[in-house]
Amino acid sequence: MTSSTHPDAGAEPTRAHATPYGYIGRKDDYLKRLRRIEGQARGLQRMVDGEEYCIDILTQVSAMTKALQSVALGLLEEHLSHCVVQAAIAGGPEAQAKVKEASDAIARLVRS
Amino acid sequence: MTSSTHPDAGAEPTRAHATPYGYIGRKDDYLKRLRRIEGQARGLQRMVDGEEYCIDILTQVSAMTKALQSVALGLLEEHLSHCVVQAAIAGGPEAQAKVKEASDAIARLVRS
Amino acid sequence: MTSSTHPDAGAEPTRAHATPYGYIGRKDDYLKRLRRIEGQARGLQRMVDGEEYCIDILTQVSAMTKALQSVALGLLEEHLSHCVVQAAIAGGPEAQAKVKEASDAIARLVRS
Amino acid sequence: MTSSTHPDAGAEPTRAHATPYGYIGRKDDYLKRLRRIEGQARGLQRMVDGEEYCIDILTQVSAMTKALQSVALGLLEEHLSHCVVQAAIAGGPEAQAKVKEASDAIARLVRS
Repeated sequence: MTSSTHPDAGAEPTRAHATPYGYIGRKDDYLKRLRRIEGQARGLQRMVDGEEYCIDILTQVSAMTKALQSVALGLLEEHLSHCVVQAAIAGGPEAQAKVKEASDAIARLVRS
Repeated sequence: MTSSTHPDAGAEPTRAHATPYGYIGRKDDYLKRLRRIEGQARGLQRMVDGEEYCIDILTQVSAMTKALQSVALGLLEEHLSHCVVQAAIAGGPEAQAKVKEASDAIARLVRS
Repeated sequence: MTSSTHPDAGAEPTRAHATPYGYIGRKDDYLKRLRRIEGQARGLQRMVDGEEYCIDILTQVSAMTKALQSVALGLLEEHLSHCVVQAAIAGGPEAQAKVKEASDAIARLVRS
Repeated sequence: MTSSTHPDAGAEPTRAHATPYGYIGRKDDYLKRLRRIEGQARGLQRMVDGEEYCIDILTQVSAMTKALQSVALGLLEEHLSHCVVQAAIAGGPEAQAKVKEASDAIARLVRS
């Protein structure tokens, strides 16, 4: 991915938003949540390997899916509040391109 | 798309929010889709009343859910591209309030 | 759909399950819920026609989606507890065919 | 599929539930898929740590959610085709208890 497709990503290192993506301010929180999700994936392997009851495994899969969804909704809110809002302020076709791109990501989440 | 279907698209700069909502330019399309969804709800009643096979009813419920989701994703994209973008341009706390409100609506869609 | 694809549907009217589909015992309840869902579809048309706020419309779409999902989950539980259980008791390839058919319906629900 | 991979398929009529769970015949496949999902969780951490673009991260989250869902749907189908079918054949209140339990798991999947 080049800076031309994401002009706000490092094109002007001296500009105010040296870290252009909204989630970066909460990077440690996201890393912690994703490590927990990775742990859930390992827990599921132990359950399958230990031949545990299918319904108990399904309960853990649902919990893991919810945790992932929650990460996605957080990233999306920060994306709207930073990248999309900044593109709107900057004006021009970039604003509508960002809205289209965010809408496509929302559709993938709703349908997954 | 003409300024008459989207009066908020700069046609009348002195009256910022004549019809502020993005979907209104496609109102007839949404009404048509919602009438079709209403027809699907009536079709489901006929199926239940006629004691049709459960799986066939479930197939129709899934089709109707997809149609509803598609309406929701369309409304959401137009909301982002009009209300949220306009609030971002106007600036102030309103922009972040609109982002929060949209994110809550997205979360309800993803979880429903 | 012929009785050959659904051998339990009226093939032997003198058998115990003259109403073979589980949901039929709660037919009136399902009809009432589907009429309410039809009313929600009409309510959405009034909201769009009245040019109401996009987020308020989305909230109603989420409520309607949840109501539909709840109907689907009810139908599915009754399908499992009647059609699938009866096919299992009857034995033969029909049992696995019913499980496959139910699983496909569940996949459509989960992905819609 | 041999009776050694599915010992519950009638091989030992005197010990009804040696390894009662349907998914166990495909344990290696499930372990492989879950390891891949664990890898996706690690990939997401690398993306966040490398401050990659939010939308690209969301695309990966959607892919991982779909992979998890697919594991869940597979486990569920095997649960219906083994545990639920066996309980139905055994008869008694256990059959309906299994159906209720499976329906609750389906509801959690549909709503997650």
